[in-house]
Amino acid sequence: MTKVILSINAGSSSVKISVYTAQQRESPRRLAEAEIAGLTAPPSQLSYVRGDVQVLKNASPEGNISNQDDAFKAILDVLTGDPALPEISTKSDISVACHRVVHGGDYTTAKVITQDTYDHLEKIADLAPLHNANSLRIIKSCMDELPGALNVAYFDSAFHATIPEHIHTYPIDPEIARNNQLRKYGFHGISYAFVVRAVSRFLGKDPADLNIIALHLGSGASACAIKGGRSWDTSMGLTPLAGLPGATRSGSVDPSLVFHYASDVGKLSPNSTKELHISVAEEILNKQGGWKALTGTTNFGEIAASYDTRPECKLAFDLFANRVCGYVGSYYVALGGRVDALVFAGGIGERSDKLRETVVKQAACLGFEIDPERNAAKVKDVVQDVGRKGAAHRTLVCQTDEQYEMARGCAENDELW
Amino acid sequence: MTKVILSINAGSSSVKISVYTAQQRESPRRLAEAEIAGLTAPPSQLSYVRGDVQVLKNASPEGNISNQDDAFKAILDVLTGDPALPEISTKSDISVACHRVVHGGDYTTAKVITQDTYDHLEKIADLAPLHNANSLRIIKSCMDELPGALNVAYFDSAFHATIPEHIHTYPIDPEIARNNQLRKYGFHGISYAFVVRAVSRFLGKDPADLNIIALHLGSGASACAIKGGRSWDTSMGLTPLAGLPGATRSGSVDPSLVFHYASDVGKLSPNSTKELHISVAEEILNKQGGWKALTGTTNFGEIAASYDTRPECKLAFDLFANRVCGYVGSYYVALGGRVDALVFAGGIGERSDKLRETVVKQAACLGFEIDPERNAAKVKDVVQDVGRKGAAHRTLVCQTDEQYEMARGCAENDELW
Repeated sequence: MTKVILSINAGSSSVKISVYTAQQRESPRRLAEAEIAGLTAPPSQLSYVRGDVQVLKNASPEGNISNQDDAFKAILDVLTGDPALPEISTKSDISVACHRVVHGGDYTTAKVITQDTYDHLEKIADLAPLHNANSLRIIKSCMDELPGALNVAYFDSAFHATIPEHIHTYPIDPEIARNNQLRKYGFHGISYAFVVRAVSRFLGKDPADLNIIALHLGSGASACAIKGGRSWDTSMGLTPLAGLPGATRSGSVDPSLVFHYASDVGKLSPNSTKELHISVAEEILNKQGGWKALTGTTNFGEIAASYDTRPECKLAFDLFANRVCGYVGSYYVALGGRVDALVFAGGIGERSDKLRETVVKQAACLGFEIDPERNAAKVKDVVQDVGRKGAAHRTLVCQTDEQYEMARGCAENDELW
Repeated sequence: MTKVILSINAGSSSVKISVYTAQQRESPRRLAEAEIAGLTAPPSQLSYVRGDVQVLKNASPEGNISNQDDAFKAILDVLTGDPALPEISTKSDISVACHRVVHGGDYTTAKVITQDTYDHLEKIADLAPLHNANSLRIIKSCMDELPGALNVAYFDSAFHATIPEHIHTYPIDPEIARNNQLRKYGFHGISYAFVVRAVSRFLGKDPADLNIIALHLGSGASACAIKGGRSWDTSMGLTPLAGLPGATRSGSVDPSLVFHYASDVGKLSPNSTKELHISVAEEILNKQGGWKALTGTTNFGEIAASYDTRPECKLAFDLFANRVCGYVGSYYVALGGRVDALVFAGGIGERSDKLRETVVKQAACLGFEIDPERNAAKVKDVVQDVGRKGAAHRTLVCQTDEQYEMARGCAENDELW
């Protein structure tokens, strides 16, 4: 039996949906992908690819798109309304809708969403109110509008459930930590799961033998030490705020800092709702920091390109490379130097050869070496080698694909068949 | 001309004073040292060493000792009242009183304290209210009670003034950062300055050529990448809270964490004063965390000794070693692998051979190796080698001495002569 799977990825400023057909335990085949971007910087833009054809690029979506749920519905209309995509001519053709959910709390695997699961997800949302609310709203829509489909939640935190206790524990009152569920969770796990599978295949290794330092560098950025195919440590923490800076996120700063940044940071932000409590501090550190704060742009490509002409871009680039190198060194030690590869993924990891070169050069003392020609080449394959042949450790780029990873998980989840 | 110098080191729970005689540009000679400890866990205990003689050990100090300033005055009475210490028979024998001040804000060198300096120090105190207030009170006493003495402030942050911009900058709004003086300052700098001098001498190197990873591990703990004898990076930040955990300090945690730990963490703590604003959050993270929270004791020796018998001690030990190793790896990369030595200092660094062994074994992939016999030997010298002969990089222990470092600075400061 063939099923149509929607993989839904709601980001802070965009919604991306990929459509797959899949048979049980076989690799899904992508039919189409549509995205509405620019939700936080209207007007939003709709792009739509069917097969290999770019049907729409930065078009104006129909109707008033003011949030992730509007975007989801608009994309659904595009997909069901496209006569050249007969696999979804009505909503009832959709068998499975899988959803990327940032914070999974104590969930350590993907979950088919029932009313109970949904209620539990609402509770978890308070741990990461800025991150989970968007996907929850879309899940609710799917439950209402696609009554024939099974909904499955994939959690960015689930991959990190294997982090050992002495690493995921915060040195704080253990009882409060337990009651309030305060520990390192880690995120970008759907991406890291994809990276493990892809890099294992590329290197011809069993995933259970794979040791890598993986860098998911996008507008949200994190690093992960992967030992034997499993997460050993990662840079994000209780929430995605900790660790590396991002487009608008400060990353780890002195936990005292925000109290010296503004007054009343402990108060609830006006963006809070009855269910979701967002402190002013969390909003400042997640939304008013990062390279946007330093340079005025969230576009890292522009920052890298302006390195020699704009001092603030040089500062932001050097700062980011420095923080990334810190994790490379730290995780090299965590893996005892038994590292199959340093792997760059995410929008910046895949596209910024300049950042890759800078990081690898700074980490030369560990045995990583870039090959300038391979590094400058366009990344076409899922995994591509950019390291010098003969270097002690390999340097790879991986085009990670969270939507595919979720669809693949659905194809292999017997519960859905 | 010989001068009597008091080196005053006010910690969170103790005051230690060392008495030196010095001639200009010559090494100071220590006459005596007295300490009152246990200020936060009364009754406090007075210890006093004159020359090589332990005159008092854990005695009860006279009078009511309820804070650092009381302790200072009690020690002063002990010193002036000891007929066997004729160099200070009255307060007017004291020519110079130098003070360890944790946060120096924008001060990059030691400062002779005038009323202006004092006023500026009071302003800086708001950046680190939990840390500077105690030394400020003692400075005030000295200005009042030792009118014949020059007071000099030595700042823990000054050594780190050389940290480059892309490392000391936080990725936050640059204007707010500038106005509110938000940057990485770093601390334990008096200790690191001592370590640089001592290790350079031990290795027979010019300090300007010395590259080390230095670990000051005590009830407050930090790591420092030292390049060419100068601070390149350090683990503490705007305040001493960031970085490694300590006896009661959480160290770096997700900056969101405290908002999920308790409500109203942005409010001022009842311990605030008109001048000093201490948020509840800062108090929680500085006072209710660390290995005390995990194990019930602030005594790291006890934790290490209970590793095999108490799971919570194993957790705290492993957690601490893990965080330390993270900085070793990170700073190894920062120094490009050109590392003369990994140097352990501070109470734990000097005394816990178990921690040294654990850290060095975890960092074996970088070329550090412990010599079990040398590591188990008592540390007697200022610098002692505990690494295996022939290892790629040396591993040293340094008995750091902040009071000596300040007195030495005074002997070389022509302003005071």
